[in-house]
Amino acid sequence: MANITKKVSWSSRADESGAAGEGTPLLNGSDQPRLSRQPSEGGSIFQIGRLSTVDLEEEITSDEDSLRGRPKEIPHNEKLLSLKYESLDYDNIENQLFLEEERRMSYMGFRCLEISRWVVCGLIGFLTGLIACFIDIAVEELAGFKYQVVKENIEKFTEVGGLSISLLLWAVLNSAIVMLGAIIVAFFEPIAAGSGIPQIKCYLNGIKIPRVVRLKTLMVKVFGVICSVVGGLAVGKEGPMIHSGAVVAAGVSQGRSTSLKRDFKIFEYFRRDTEKRDFVSAGAAAGVSAAFGAPVGGVLFSLEEGASFWNQMLTWRIFFASMISTFTLNFFLSIYHKKPGDLSNPGLINFGRFQSDSVTYNLYEIPLFIAMGAIGGLLGALFNVLNYWLTIFRIRYVHRPCLQVMEAMLVAAVTATVSFTMIYFSDDCQPLDSEHTEEYPLQLFCADGEYNSMATAFFNTPERSVRSLFHNQPGTYNPLTLGLFTLTYFFLACWTYGLAVSAGVFIPSLLIGAAWGRLFGILLAYITPLPIWADSGKYALIGAAAQLGGIVRMTLSLTVIMVEATGNVTYGFPIMLVLMTAKIVGDYFVEGLYDIHIKLQSVPFLHWEAPATSHWLTAREVMSSPVTCLNRIEKVGTIVDTLSNTSTNHNGFPVVVQISGSDEPAKLCGLILRSQLIVLLKHKVFVELARSRLTHRKLQLKDFRDAYPRFPPIQSIHVSQDERECMMDLTEFMNATPYTVPQETSLPRVFKLFRALGLRHLVVVDDENRVVGLVTRKDLARYHLGKHGLEELQLAQT
Amino acid sequence: MANITKKVSWSSRADESGAAGEGTPLLNGSDQPRLSRQPSEGGSIFQIGRLSTVDLEEEITSDEDSLRGRPKEIPHNEKLLSLKYESLDYDNIENQLFLEEERRMSYMGFRCLEISRWVVCGLIGFLTGLIACFIDIAVEELAGFKYQVVKENIEKFTEVGGLSISLLLWAVLNSAIVMLGAIIVAFFEPIAAGSGIPQIKCYLNGIKIPRVVRLKTLMVKVFGVICSVVGGLAVGKEGPMIHSGAVVAAGVSQGRSTSLKRDFKIFEYFRRDTEKRDFVSAGAAAGVSAAFGAPVGGVLFSLEEGASFWNQMLTWRIFFASMISTFTLNFFLSIYHKKPGDLSNPGLINFGRFQSDSVTYNLYEIPLFIAMGAIGGLLGALFNVLNYWLTIFRIRYVHRPCLQVMEAMLVAAVTATVSFTMIYFSDDCQPLDSEHTEEYPLQLFCADGEYNSMATAFFNTPERSVRSLFHNQPGTYNPLTLGLFTLTYFFLACWTYGLAVSAGVFIPSLLIGAAWGRLFGILLAYITPLPIWADSGKYALIGAAAQLGGIVRMTLSLTVIMVEATGNVTYGFPIMLVLMTAKIVGDYFVEGLYDIHIKLQSVPFLHWEAPATSHWLTAREVMSSPVTCLNRIEKVGTIVDTLSNTSTNHNGFPVVVQISGSDEPAKLCGLILRSQLIVLLKHKVFVELARSRLTHRKLQLKDFRDAYPRFPPIQSIHVSQDERECMMDLTEFMNATPYTVPQETSLPRVFKLFRALGLRHLVVVDDENRVVGLVTRKDLARYHLGKHGLEELQLAQT
Repeated sequence: MANITKKVSWSSRADESGAAGEGTPLLNGSDQPRLSRQPSEGGSIFQIGRLSTVDLEEEITSDEDSLRGRPKEIPHNEKLLSLKYESLDYDNIENQLFLEEERRMSYMGFRCLEISRWVVCGLIGFLTGLIACFIDIAVEELAGFKYQVVKENIEKFTEVGGLSISLLLWAVLNSAIVMLGAIIVAFFEPIAAGSGIPQIKCYLNGIKIPRVVRLKTLMVKVFGVICSVVGGLAVGKEGPMIHSGAVVAAGVSQGRSTSLKRDFKIFEYFRRDTEKRDFVSAGAAAGVSAAFGAPVGGVLFSLEEGASFWNQMLTWRIFFASMISTFTLNFFLSIYHKKPGDLSNPGLINFGRFQSDSVTYNLYEIPLFIAMGAIGGLLGALFNVLNYWLTIFRIRYVHRPCLQVMEAMLVAAVTATVSFTMIYFSDDCQPLDSEHTEEYPLQLFCADGEYNSMATAFFNTPERSVRSLFHNQPGTYNPLTLGLFTLTYFFLACWTYGLAVSAGVFIPSLLIGAAWGRLFGILLAYITPLPIWADSGKYALIGAAAQLGGIVRMTLSLTVIMVEATGNVTYGFPIMLVLMTAKIVGDYFVEGLYDIHIKLQSVPFLHWEAPATSHWLTAREVMSSPVTCLNRIEKVGTIVDTLSNTSTNHNGFPVVVQISGSDEPAKLCGLILRSQLIVLLKHKVFVELARSRLTHRKLQLKDFRDAYPRFPPIQSIHVSQDERECMMDLTEFMNATPYTVPQETSLPRVFKLFRALGLRHLVVVDDENRVVGLVTRKDLARYHLGKHGLEELQLAQT
Repeated sequence: MANITKKVSWSSRADESGAAGEGTPLLNGSDQPRLSRQPSEGGSIFQIGRLSTVDLEEEITSDEDSLRGRPKEIPHNEKLLSLKYESLDYDNIENQLFLEEERRMSYMGFRCLEISRWVVCGLIGFLTGLIACFIDIAVEELAGFKYQVVKENIEKFTEVGGLSISLLLWAVLNSAIVMLGAIIVAFFEPIAAGSGIPQIKCYLNGIKIPRVVRLKTLMVKVFGVICSVVGGLAVGKEGPMIHSGAVVAAGVSQGRSTSLKRDFKIFEYFRRDTEKRDFVSAGAAAGVSAAFGAPVGGVLFSLEEGASFWNQMLTWRIFFASMISTFTLNFFLSIYHKKPGDLSNPGLINFGRFQSDSVTYNLYEIPLFIAMGAIGGLLGALFNVLNYWLTIFRIRYVHRPCLQVMEAMLVAAVTATVSFTMIYFSDDCQPLDSEHTEEYPLQLFCADGEYNSMATAFFNTPERSVRSLFHNQPGTYNPLTLGLFTLTYFFLACWTYGLAVSAGVFIPSLLIGAAWGRLFGILLAYITPLPIWADSGKYALIGAAAQLGGIVRMTLSLTVIMVEATGNVTYGFPIMLVLMTAKIVGDYFVEGLYDIHIKLQSVPFLHWEAPATSHWLTAREVMSSPVTCLNRIEKVGTIVDTLSNTSTNHNGFPVVVQISGSDEPAKLCGLILRSQLIVLLKHKVFVELARSRLTHRKLQLKDFRDAYPRFPPIQSIHVSQDERECMMDLTEFMNATPYTVPQETSLPRVFKLFRALGLRHLVVVDDENRVVGLVTRKDLARYHLGKHGLEELQLAQT
């Protein structure tokens, strides 16, 4: 890449003034022939600027290059930053077309838009609730059927002997179901694996993860999660709801489905990243809300993960979607449970009603809670470290779909076997009283009228097990059972997370925490028999919060989700303390689970603030340069060459204009995106054609919206040799007022501007308004605070 | 103001490059004599730019001028925008001093800062909780004493006859107490009047309301609110808690008290608007949390009112402060109530525990809830309109302190009289059973073993009345009592809000709503006697939400506050629906109460977004111009003259630099604030002095922090005639990288940048980076959406 500044001179004075003129292109045909351009070897694009002093960026290479030139193992490394991810445009492209449309729109038009936003949010909530309802009922029915079959089999063989056949039945049944789920995920839509929370976090952060909000992903996700839960894996169905809600939102808000090839011609205004992001936030919130019956928690989750700018009406709409989602789920579940109108089951999981007498805690219990938080932080960190190693291993050796399916089946079989062994060797028999909460009490080797307590924990959907741990009478579990259960479930859950099945980590975490929390409570009561400590259910709740906090490290939203799921405000303070302690302790060792997985994908994720010690860096050091710039009136051939250049593969181009008659470097007058140029090329918006064909339809915003979001690649656009010589006038289409910063701006300041406004490109100019560099997401994301101060990630085309 | 562009030429090339050099001033003494400046009549400042085409701004005049030249009545008008309010600087001033400090600071330094932020938030929560506790206990004790005295008196005279003496006693007692409260507010600290919520909203929005976060204000507020509640006014003690929390935060976070003249030399880093704002948010949240036992609601309140940029750690800290505040209040109240360790009274008000069987609603009740929301919206709008007229009246005719005190006394007397009359003529006797919730049951003319039900509503603190309405057995109130009570209390509360006493409108609103809500429930049960409608307490709750929503129009935060105060998540959906309906209906007629009062103060309040139909406006039309600019090396006399110019009274000045040898207009190189210039002048940071006195201490950030936030006026700074000829080098002190926008930027885009980053000055530049205008808060706040489309407010120095 030669660092050449080419000179372009304009003879018309008009060009200079009208960087964002009043709707008509200032350049008429007569100017065009006067354009003189010096020939050069690098095509007719020109590049402004100098190489940055801290020149650490690698040359950006295309996918093919990187795959050829680099060993397969290196890419997935948390010290790398991938360049394959594009950013979303959360900054409106305020070009003339957009402004004209906005100016044409009446006040009533804006009101109608506002109303349709509410309608869309209502729909999102409703559909998300329906999906949650479907998942819940499907899991309930299928799991019920499975447990019934296995239970009968076990009961049959307990007396006869030969329980190994039961084990075999159980293991095969589980493996088969899990295999189904793993096959569709691994072969059809790998992005549907896991809980989807890291992916939604990235989306809301402004990163375009391919295929993450497609209809197909949703289908695979829903079917996959049913299989994993019914297959008895140590997973929950709550995490995937968040992803499902987001997909629903992205679909509904666009008023069309590309997969189904249907365009309903509605909500066309919302076909851009800015609007879509808002709806996806609402969808994610609706998902949380449906999963945990926590509408406020959902809103806070969306805000905590995604929002950079808080807007009252937006938040209110998100809350509306959340509420509708909970309400829909609640309503349909009440019909399913044959108690129509009883709206007391707001989420997929709810922690049940804590009795009023247990709904209190004492001041001297607070140190205990803090200690439990610390334990949760430690165990969470251990979980994360183990899962990190496992993930590294998986990335290196288990990347083929059939291997992934086999691993999932193996885990399913092992889970069944371990559970069975635990149940088999346990002799913790409990009386089977009338108010037991277990649906499938296993008698096994216990006396008549008793059931095996270990079986309660394993032989149940995890949601039910959590509830039993919270609410069962003191004395239901003996300490050994709980200890063993914690130990085995911890490793099983850790092994399971990251498999090619769609499933969440929330419920397993809660279950592990509830188990050791209850154990903690029992031991406390054993050491100092005070009446207040008799209620080990309270400690189970605190333990669950501690464990979950230690693994995912969410803060405010998790507190609120826990409080809402408990249905009781009083526990807010201890839960907050516990989550805070767990986060502090856990962060000392390793990051949260979602962040680890985001890092392992080398996603250029932007955190809340620039690293604290980065004030010595300025835009000059941070920016990418030289920058490929385009002229306001540019040759089609140049544009095609620029876009086709696989060695740069840029997505945004500053548009510059030369002061007529002067030989000074050109000044910034706008910014145009690859996607816009593609649409322009596709519609052949060339100056010459506009003159020859008078009837030529003027390009409208609708043309851009129709192409959104799957803009065709440049290779699919045919430009003839004659057309290459035409000129394109970008004036109308470029964003005439891109945000700029001077070169001396400190990194935190650049970061704040970039993050607060959700930018994709930030132009760095000198004091003459000439382009010297471009700051994009990767330039900011690559600085992070490591153990030894500020570190820089390497950029790689993974 | 002459529109003259003066020419300044520099001979040294060094000036151009080093707008933000590496710590040492680039200009040494030898450059200074070469500075040549053309003489002119307007002092030696120079102004760049032209008058904007839409030239609607009035000339900015000083306080004295406006008071002399303008009639007293005009200023308070919601079509005006006052120029007397300064903005806060929520954008860090990144000058060389600041950057040097940040660069010097180690990673551990930042960690320590982070820890001290947590400590400060903990302290804020603790102190706010203590204050809430103090207010609660004081009110409880004093009101108890008062009611006991009056009750005994009434009982004495009921049999003897001559209840007019009791009335007199009651009225005089109330008036006297209210007089006390009104005197301290009206004479000592008028800003302490009302709930303080509008003021805190403004502060968080970025407007400097004088004296609003001072210690004196807090003292008056606390004492005042005790007097108003004990004096039997139709007010609550909850609103003022928010203001109190904010004052505590502003005090604690600065580590010193200017009022007490104590500087603890701690938290010096926090002595700037950016940091202080975060703490004030935490304080407001802690206040809400203490008032309603709603820590999450508090966080949401702060965010809804104040935050423009959501930051995870900040929110988490705010939540911490809220939690500590609730916890402290709860803990000390539990000791006061002789049940130490029973943490079940989380707020000043709590709505009591709704019984589980009443904690449900049915699908067919939802239309009813929506209807109630609409009623709430209508009644709220009526309330607001009446209060608006009353406030206009008060501004015109009741602006002298003694008149204000007399009005407050009158209201107190009338409240007592009306209450007494209502009680006297009511014959709604109810049996006095063992589980009554009234603390002061008045028998009056009822039979033995019965009490007067109307008296329950009036002869009680409003908090208790609300709780009775929510929870008393069906049949406790007869419809006539409720109807009359609603009617009288509505007008009393409306009259009371805006008096010169410190008091809140939350509780009266809840009380009115609870009364008509309960009435609604009773009538429903009367029309269609279904069992589900027997529980009128549920309708009281919904009515309370509707009325409060109709008056204050808060959204998400109010929902969460209501849910948290109820202690029950199930009612979330109906409460949300009701608040939404109330807001939509109410907004159709008139704005929310707080917004009305903000508008009547002509405060330049920035809403969430620019008006929808403002895309046709650009920075060119919006900006103020010409702009007073300063040179990077400026004559002291010029600076003093600029600052002393009472006809402009600007607070921020773009700093420009001339390219040496060229006669082009100067280019922007920085921005400096009046406050910074004042500190520079005070410390005589002149180029000549620095050379002559070698030992002269270099000015540090500490000097700016010591002067914060009460910078002396320019008049108090003496500059001799000799010194006027000296030069000042602004390079080190100016913000070298101010945010800029091109002239063509649309208003919504300017607005978004301004609002998202919390700016105070936004420089508008042309494509040569020359200053053409300056956008400040008033330029953006003056456009609003009226009945006839986009309207422009007039600017006035009120």
